[in-house]
Amino acid sequence: MHRHNIRVYYEDTDAGGIVYYANYLKFLERARTEWLRALGIEQDSLLEQSTGFVVKHLEIDYLAAARFNELLAVESTLALVRRASLVFEQRIYNHNNRLLVTAQVKVACVDLRSMKARPIPDFVLGELSGVR
Amino acid sequence: MHRHNIRVYYEDTDAGGIVYYANYLKFLERARTEWLRALGIEQDSLLEQSTGFVVKHLEIDYLAAARFNELLAVESTLALVRRASLVFEQRIYNHNNRLLVTAQVKVACVDLRSMKARPIPDFVLGELSGVR
Amino acid sequence: MHRHNIRVYYEDTDAGGIVYYANYLKFLERARTEWLRALGIEQDSLLEQSTGFVVKHLEIDYLAAARFNELLAVESTLALVRRASLVFEQRIYNHNNRLLVTAQVKVACVDLRSMKARPIPDFVLGELSGVR
Amino acid sequence: MHRHNIRVYYEDTDAGGIVYYANYLKFLERARTEWLRALGIEQDSLLEQSTGFVVKHLEIDYLAAARFNELLAVESTLALVRRASLVFEQRIYNHNNRLLVTAQVKVACVDLRSMKARPIPDFVLGELSGVR
Repeated sequence: MHRHNIRVYYEDTDAGGIVYYANYLKFLERARTEWLRALGIEQDSLLEQSTGFVVKHLEIDYLAAARFNELLAVESTLALVRRASLVFEQRIYNHNNRLLVTAQVKVACVDLRSMKARPIPDFVLGELSGVR
Repeated sequence: MHRHNIRVYYEDTDAGGIVYYANYLKFLERARTEWLRALGIEQDSLLEQSTGFVVKHLEIDYLAAARFNELLAVESTLALVRRASLVFEQRIYNHNNRLLVTAQVKVACVDLRSMKARPIPDFVLGELSGVR
Repeated sequence: MHRHNIRVYYEDTDAGGIVYYANYLKFLERARTEWLRALGIEQDSLLEQSTGFVVKHLEIDYLAAARFNELLAVESTLALVRRASLVFEQRIYNHNNRLLVTAQVKVACVDLRSMKARPIPDFVLGELSGVR
Repeated sequence: MHRHNIRVYYEDTDAGGIVYYANYLKFLERARTEWLRALGIEQDSLLEQSTGFVVKHLEIDYLAAARFNELLAVESTLALVRRASLVFEQRIYNHNNRLLVTAQVKVACVDLRSMKARPIPDFVLGELSGVR
């Protein structure tokens, strides 16, 4: 399990006074990226080889709204590791530990030129196998 | 059914060369907003009464990626109309009529101060009942 | 002079109830893009040759705020055409013709791999010379 | 002087492979917000009183581009403190200490309902006077 803190800035909110619904997906991806980074996986070196993780499927429940200036925590776990895809379970909490968002995110490893599936690089799989 | 065209600008893309996954949610919401507008429902007048539609649940499949400068079409249908919530089915196609994204989006009508559910205003329900 | 209409969606606003200041830059770029398109210049074909226009300098005055659901108009003129750069003057009005934003934007033509200046392609310069 | 680190995520980049020009404005605002927070000024309590800082004028030079996954540093200083406005000077560096962006940002204190200028609250001015 990995935990990453996110501050809500004006850029994240909308005129309804709450975080705009698409922006939670940014928070979820930042958390996934920081988790990979903590494991020694830097995605810019993958990008140089035209390799990227793209989201194929997402299911998200918005239970309660985050507001401007709140400090959120994103908790991420790996539910599934396959040869060319990963499934993350992610939860966003506010500073009172109230659960705001739950999401299940399936990402696939692709060649960014052809957008075709490609096996997850071995060193990435190796690091991920350790965290399950 | 409602159809709304969206142009992909640089702002929508990412370094992978494709539309960033969260930005499709913006496209989906623009399409829902334009559909409501076409029915005579302007959400700024709802906002003045602290009434808004917030997304409670979203399930989305990313089948193929949109790229910079493409002209997309969002097709929206209403799958369910309840007293305080709506379920939209939405599909995004590119200019070759290739299906890129399918999504099911549940929105709830809320009081934006308390974030509590509130019945969808009658004139909105009336308009929506006609399109089913 | 070119005129392009933009609708303000929830995604563009912030918790202050107004359009977030960075998002006007998106509106300005959409307008520049649509102007180029109207002249027959499609930037995806430039991108395929690793050629892009990048903003080098921007000066912007925020005179009045746009709000959710407003229909804006962006008026663009070309103030300067050089071998490898352009200067646009742009103004954003709301539906009451109130001036909200004025901006001067200098864009340079670059090779996106090296980020070095490159001459604006001749067919682009040719089209632009006609609109001055 | 205040220094704030920012990580570049996919959400910040565009198909040109670099940070999208409007997104640096988000970075600049995050840095201003964190500076105010470090001084004990939380903007959500201002927002509750319908008080906000809005950008009135911005001048920005884009000297070099930031790329995906870079760790940036935003350095902010206060150039001017007036009764109802502030001028910040801000610089963004990459991890090699290369200067990417310089900006001068004038923000005004406003009543967010009327958008009219309002004096900066005394406790805010007091904190800011100490950092000049």
